[in-house]
Amino acid sequence: MYFCPMMLQQDTIAAIATPQGAGAIGIIRISGPAAFDIVQAAWKGRNLKEAASHTLHLGTLLNADGEPLDEAVASLFRAPRSYTMEDTIELSCHGSSYILQKVMERLLQLGARTAEPGEFTQRAFLNGRFDLSQAEAVADLIASSSQKSHRIALQQMRGGVSNDIKALREELVHFASLIELELDFGEEDVEFAGREDLLRLIAKIDTHIRKLIRSFKLGNAIKNGVPVAIVGKPNAGKSTLLNALLNEEKAIVSDIAGTTRDVVEDILNIDGLQFRLMDTAGLRETSDTIEAIGVQRTYERMRGSSIILYVFDAGTDTPAEVRSVYENYRKEYPLAEIICVANKTDLLADREYTADFPVLRISAREKQGIEAIREALRTAAGTEGYGESDVIISNLRHVQALDRSADFLDRARTAIESGLSGDLVAMDIRTALRYLGEITGHVDVEELLGNIFSKFCIGK
Amino acid sequence: MYFCPMMLQQDTIAAIATPQGAGAIGIIRISGPAAFDIVQAAWKGRNLKEAASHTLHLGTLLNADGEPLDEAVASLFRAPRSYTMEDTIELSCHGSSYILQKVMERLLQLGARTAEPGEFTQRAFLNGRFDLSQAEAVADLIASSSQKSHRIALQQMRGGVSNDIKALREELVHFASLIELELDFGEEDVEFAGREDLLRLIAKIDTHIRKLIRSFKLGNAIKNGVPVAIVGKPNAGKSTLLNALLNEEKAIVSDIAGTTRDVVEDILNIDGLQFRLMDTAGLRETSDTIEAIGVQRTYERMRGSSIILYVFDAGTDTPAEVRSVYENYRKEYPLAEIICVANKTDLLADREYTADFPVLRISAREKQGIEAIREALRTAAGTEGYGESDVIISNLRHVQALDRSADFLDRARTAIESGLSGDLVAMDIRTALRYLGEITGHVDVEELLGNIFSKFCIGK
Repeated sequence: MYFCPMMLQQDTIAAIATPQGAGAIGIIRISGPAAFDIVQAAWKGRNLKEAASHTLHLGTLLNADGEPLDEAVASLFRAPRSYTMEDTIELSCHGSSYILQKVMERLLQLGARTAEPGEFTQRAFLNGRFDLSQAEAVADLIASSSQKSHRIALQQMRGGVSNDIKALREELVHFASLIELELDFGEEDVEFAGREDLLRLIAKIDTHIRKLIRSFKLGNAIKNGVPVAIVGKPNAGKSTLLNALLNEEKAIVSDIAGTTRDVVEDILNIDGLQFRLMDTAGLRETSDTIEAIGVQRTYERMRGSSIILYVFDAGTDTPAEVRSVYENYRKEYPLAEIICVANKTDLLADREYTADFPVLRISAREKQGIEAIREALRTAAGTEGYGESDVIISNLRHVQALDRSADFLDRARTAIESGLSGDLVAMDIRTALRYLGEITGHVDVEELLGNIFSKFCIGK
Repeated sequence: MYFCPMMLQQDTIAAIATPQGAGAIGIIRISGPAAFDIVQAAWKGRNLKEAASHTLHLGTLLNADGEPLDEAVASLFRAPRSYTMEDTIELSCHGSSYILQKVMERLLQLGARTAEPGEFTQRAFLNGRFDLSQAEAVADLIASSSQKSHRIALQQMRGGVSNDIKALREELVHFASLIELELDFGEEDVEFAGREDLLRLIAKIDTHIRKLIRSFKLGNAIKNGVPVAIVGKPNAGKSTLLNALLNEEKAIVSDIAGTTRDVVEDILNIDGLQFRLMDTAGLRETSDTIEAIGVQRTYERMRGSSIILYVFDAGTDTPAEVRSVYENYRKEYPLAEIICVANKTDLLADREYTADFPVLRISAREKQGIEAIREALRTAAGTEGYGESDVIISNLRHVQALDRSADFLDRARTAIESGLSGDLVAMDIRTALRYLGEITGHVDVEELLGNIFSKFCIGK
């Protein structure tokens, strides 16, 4: 495939690239055709314009009056061997906000423009260094705060998602080419691809796309953590369970029903995945105003949770009662996984708690069955069935594009099955292709044409 | 002068060199004999150990399992061409706290040690890259927040103070050499230097040192700002004056005496020097508890101020009354400059406010005479009489060393004038020299001996 940069950037941009605040080092990055001219005009030291790419130079940055602003090290990256693929200089200054500000002012005086947020990465994308999904991963990588989110962002930045999407697109392009070719020969009633073959190909692509869509559950969990509401009647042992899971005395525990009022939150890390546990006020009718607000908040948290740990007292709550609550939650919170937890089983003596629905039997106080809860959380988060090298979608924009793409594949399938004409099918396929292209930032029409002309050029 | 490193650093240190927080770029700096070995062990890409100094290399940092931690750019500085004069690598990573933490962990696993605060600069000092006063200026430079403080720190870092101290020390060493030589020839009753010449030399050095000591007033003002308390009776117009100086409605102003209770503060910048203006509660006996606390605070602020703007009502306060307060303040706050300000002169009609002590006549409400107050503040801050290239002492440690040095010069002078023996004089001079040496971190004895042996080597 040939490479075509979408546009050429003419201006030169500059920005402070290190976080705010005082530190040993502050970096100013400047990129664009005039980068070397601009820095050289404020530079005392070796002539940077004559220096080779990928070299470091100590010098002094001067203000407009020729007075020193700072002693700095200039890192030179000549196009296309830079992050943006443009001429780029990174100035390593003393990490003072005042100095960085003054150096920026000087660079702007000399013709640079303040970069917009993300503009260096945007240029890297526009200049073909990487595609859109890789560019997005750069931001994810910087925001990553756990092992799994870091791995997923790095994998995406290194082209993991892109390669998968690329493979899908190639299959779709091939498919579209066959259909479009038929259209060209429409009058001659040629059929280049059997309808059965087309349907098989669509099914195959569809399976792949849906697998990626499913992975978003895990990807989102990894990126944003999994919200888990611990709910139940007062005194069911919710705070004791929270403490047992966290292995610390986080929430205040007492025999008095209604001890917890505010939502107590903490992060539980299971195999690098972050569960945001929320211990809530016990659910009951109450005349205590503060407790009533707490109950209100519990319901709010349940709505926003991916997992609801419904804790009940195995000694007092009958299976019928629990089942009715469980069924109710499944109806009320269809997006959440509900896990029923029979607590205080240590008080049942020899009796086993029996139920005709899935239930975990634990004693939070005795820390029995806690490992099973961790296992259930992991399963409910959808982390199972993915290997280290599997592509995980963690970007909402990507999953929305995949969803739309799948919709149009469905339409294409229906069109074929209904025996509709090739151009309708082709239109749906093109739309599906466009949505996939949105993920990596590729335009589809050119590529489609390119593919037709290169593979099928028959002298027409 | 020959150079002798005080000690050789054997271990390799590493630290995150950019401020905390998420940013585009985060830098990890690693310095010491094993820097290249350690980074190379976590590096996938070009072999850094074979690469030249002052070159840049893109590669991947790996964890212990060989999994990627980040894509990074390594800046290579080979000893002695680095900040610390040791082998140094700066790793430019994505600016995520998580990534930087993980890379640090990996470097520590491979044998690096976490650097103490300032340890890179300490090594630069110990390895002879610069002297102590220059090393201190690096911290000042990073903390600088105004044009003047930046200029003073940069001047000191580039050796401004050091050169001045060096010149002083050379004169003193010369002096000491003469005296010590006499001692060597003591039995022979040789006098290498006339006592009159010695006294003249001491007077010259003393003048120089005292000039540096005086400059600390300005240096400290530049570095820390000048605290200015605006005080006076209730309703004298203190808040109106504050607002007029700041040219904004900072403090609440009313006709009701006792409007200001809390101390209202703001920064006034005059020619790059920062005055920390404090508008205070009016001074009077009061039964209002909150106002009484305000009055208490006013007295506290006066004690900590370099300048007291004493504002009074020109229409009601008699010169005798004002004079008595003024004299009292001069006694109570001997370290502060007191500026008397006759306010509300616009209400005096044609009458001129006369007084037999220095007084500024203004109308804060009409913004008359404000420029004179700015001028008086500038004068009181001691900023007059210094040119751009004058050496300004801004470090308390330096001025204390200069003070002690001057004391011992005084003792030496007295010793000479009293006709005391040369070895007593020599001892005082050596002590004065040692204190000067403390500023730049030079040891004096060796140098003294070196000077004697090189200049006066007469085959003895």
